[in-house]
Amino acid sequence: MSVTTPSSQSPADVLVVGAGLIGLATAWRAARAGLSVTVVAESFGGPCASTVAAGMLTPATEASFGEEELMRLCVRSRDLFPGFVAELEQDGGSPAGYRAEGTLQVAFDADDMARLGHLGDLRTRLGLGTERLTGRECRRLEPMLAPSVRGGYLAAGDHSVDPRALLQALRAAAERCGAVGVRDRVRRLVVDGDGRARGVALDSGGEIAAGQVVLAAGVDTPSIAGIPEGVVPPLRPVKGQLLRLRTPEGEPPPVTRTVRGLVKGSPVYLVPRETGEIVLGATQEEQGFDTRLTAGGLWEVLRDAHELVPGVSELEVAETCVGLRPGSPDNEPLLGPTAVPGLQLAAGHFRHGVLLAPVTGDAMARALTTGALPDYARRFAATRSTGGPGAAGADGGPTEGGEQ
Amino acid sequence: MSVTTPSSQSPADVLVVGAGLIGLATAWRAARAGLSVTVVAESFGGPCASTVAAGMLTPATEASFGEEELMRLCVRSRDLFPGFVAELEQDGGSPAGYRAEGTLQVAFDADDMARLGHLGDLRTRLGLGTERLTGRECRRLEPMLAPSVRGGYLAAGDHSVDPRALLQALRAAAERCGAVGVRDRVRRLVVDGDGRARGVALDSGGEIAAGQVVLAAGVDTPSIAGIPEGVVPPLRPVKGQLLRLRTPEGEPPPVTRTVRGLVKGSPVYLVPRETGEIVLGATQEEQGFDTRLTAGGLWEVLRDAHELVPGVSELEVAETCVGLRPGSPDNEPLLGPTAVPGLQLAAGHFRHGVLLAPVTGDAMARALTTGALPDYARRFAATRSTGGPGAAGADGGPTEGGEQ
Repeated sequence: MSVTTPSSQSPADVLVVGAGLIGLATAWRAARAGLSVTVVAESFGGPCASTVAAGMLTPATEASFGEEELMRLCVRSRDLFPGFVAELEQDGGSPAGYRAEGTLQVAFDADDMARLGHLGDLRTRLGLGTERLTGRECRRLEPMLAPSVRGGYLAAGDHSVDPRALLQALRAAAERCGAVGVRDRVRRLVVDGDGRARGVALDSGGEIAAGQVVLAAGVDTPSIAGIPEGVVPPLRPVKGQLLRLRTPEGEPPPVTRTVRGLVKGSPVYLVPRETGEIVLGATQEEQGFDTRLTAGGLWEVLRDAHELVPGVSELEVAETCVGLRPGSPDNEPLLGPTAVPGLQLAAGHFRHGVLLAPVTGDAMARALTTGALPDYARRFAATRSTGGPGAAGADGGPTEGGEQ
Repeated sequence: MSVTTPSSQSPADVLVVGAGLIGLATAWRAARAGLSVTVVAESFGGPCASTVAAGMLTPATEASFGEEELMRLCVRSRDLFPGFVAELEQDGGSPAGYRAEGTLQVAFDADDMARLGHLGDLRTRLGLGTERLTGRECRRLEPMLAPSVRGGYLAAGDHSVDPRALLQALRAAAERCGAVGVRDRVRRLVVDGDGRARGVALDSGGEIAAGQVVLAAGVDTPSIAGIPEGVVPPLRPVKGQLLRLRTPEGEPPPVTRTVRGLVKGSPVYLVPRETGEIVLGATQEEQGFDTRLTAGGLWEVLRDAHELVPGVSELEVAETCVGLRPGSPDNEPLLGPTAVPGLQLAAGHFRHGVLLAPVTGDAMARALTTGALPDYARRFAATRSTGGPGAAGADGGPTEGGEQ
């Protein structure tokens, strides 16, 4: 997306605040649906949860108890991905870094295997097909796995994407569909005397007016000034530390598909890229707005990755990263209209922002064109805990089975 | 040291190639002895073994079998340090980052303790006073040590210095004593028809002439073009990977003195600085000119540091570093005159470059003013394996006990 100055703009139908994957997926799908769209962000492509994320599209191997409805949304989005990427690459001409080799989830010891098996039953209930493998079968798929790996599951439908490439592809596609970028810091949301959102005021002094405003600024969303009290639930930052390793040119990568492992109860993953990069991650730490890279964070990730795939030790550390995942009070995303007319949310995607980008883009485009979320997304209405238009499903009630 | 261009110089008495600690210590001591000195280097203060090093001055806790003579040189240099630093700070006005809190060497398990005890006997033979402590006594000195630490030794005379501060102090002091810096790459050594070294030719096209040339370019020394064959022994790069951690402002550092540990046979150290920085190190890897930061290198250092002082996990990673120690064929430094008249060496200091800077500066100043190394340094003559003036002590023979 080319970036312009606000003064050159006439009011857009939609103003998206935030240029991460969620903001740009919303902008692109809304523009594709015929709306005029402006995106405002301090940085386009700079460090954020989207550029730090590993890009696993792995609901089958993420499934955990108590999150069934969220997992259904994740599976829906995962299944949208091939079409989403095809349209995206067609619209923008920039590759999205999608890989469809499946995901191998492995257990380091017998306790880990028992735990994975337990989750296997849940996956069956959710209709997520995974294949149970012995340790030997795992090593046949990924020969660099440690001899001690006890077994695992192959999730043939769980894939990966390169979030940095995806972000670039979304920018290109949004631009081709007419969306306009403004690089500035939002000083505050502008709400008129009738209580309707009218746009934002910028740090540089200007204002951007729009028919509807979408807040999609990740963990920073609730701290945007001018939002009426009680409209945006608090989001807590959940810190992730990870490393990007580089396979020497001409050498085979240590893993050929996403490998997730449970090592003495501790989760770790290795996500390979076409470039030879391997992403290792990630910690999950709840300690506020802290983006320090710590000795313990690095150690934990390296320790577990080394247990699963000892050969990673030989690889060069190309980059270390820290990101903050935006966790809502119930860990589920906040989508669509709020109690403030003209103000919508696309935030709180926690660990699933990359995976949920396609379904979020579609649901938000629907909400922006029709005023209401599609049925399959109503459980995740931004108003579920705060009241207001579109509130539904906070008790897990009416939306179940009502997908469309 | 201010850096100038070669054309503005008249021939100096001494040209030092290399601006690491060894090169600058040589330059400063030679300038102080009344010689006119020029230093040429591609970088002054840039990445090199000197700026990566942790700065332990710890011969008592480094002592190992088969290195008795080298250890005697190390102890001599350690004992020179307080006076060296005092003169340096007086000459240059820049602090050298010297700390005299002693060093605690600890053992993680019973096997580690047995190994340290074995070396304790060697230390006694070398006259190096260390005090044996129980685990409880170790934790009384350093309360953040892991409860599992079995015991250790306090080396009250083993201290530390900040090599980056020391480098800066040496530059300032050398400049105040009249030394001149030239920032350029040496294309080749210039040797005249009589076989005498006359200076160096530079990449920029100029030449620097000098009465004597000292090669002090660390592991790159042997690859300087134009050196007659057989004059400079090969030096092998011994890779070290380490981390610099940052203690949050206002919080106490996890260790208050240098702590070295043996963790299941693997050595690790933590060196605190006045600034709150803690240096963790270091790997020792022999694999050529490879300066890649690797997953395995980081993991090894973090693992062992975490075992000894679990609290380091909370600290921020401020920097990761990789350096190449210059290892000579017998792991001992190469000092003084070579078989080529007018050409001297100060190289091959391996793991001891920081510690040996004072004694090297003194020995080289002596060799440059008198043509011969002092007795205490003759065992380390550059000619010991290649023949030529000053050759002695290659068999460990005549110099023992002959210190002056």
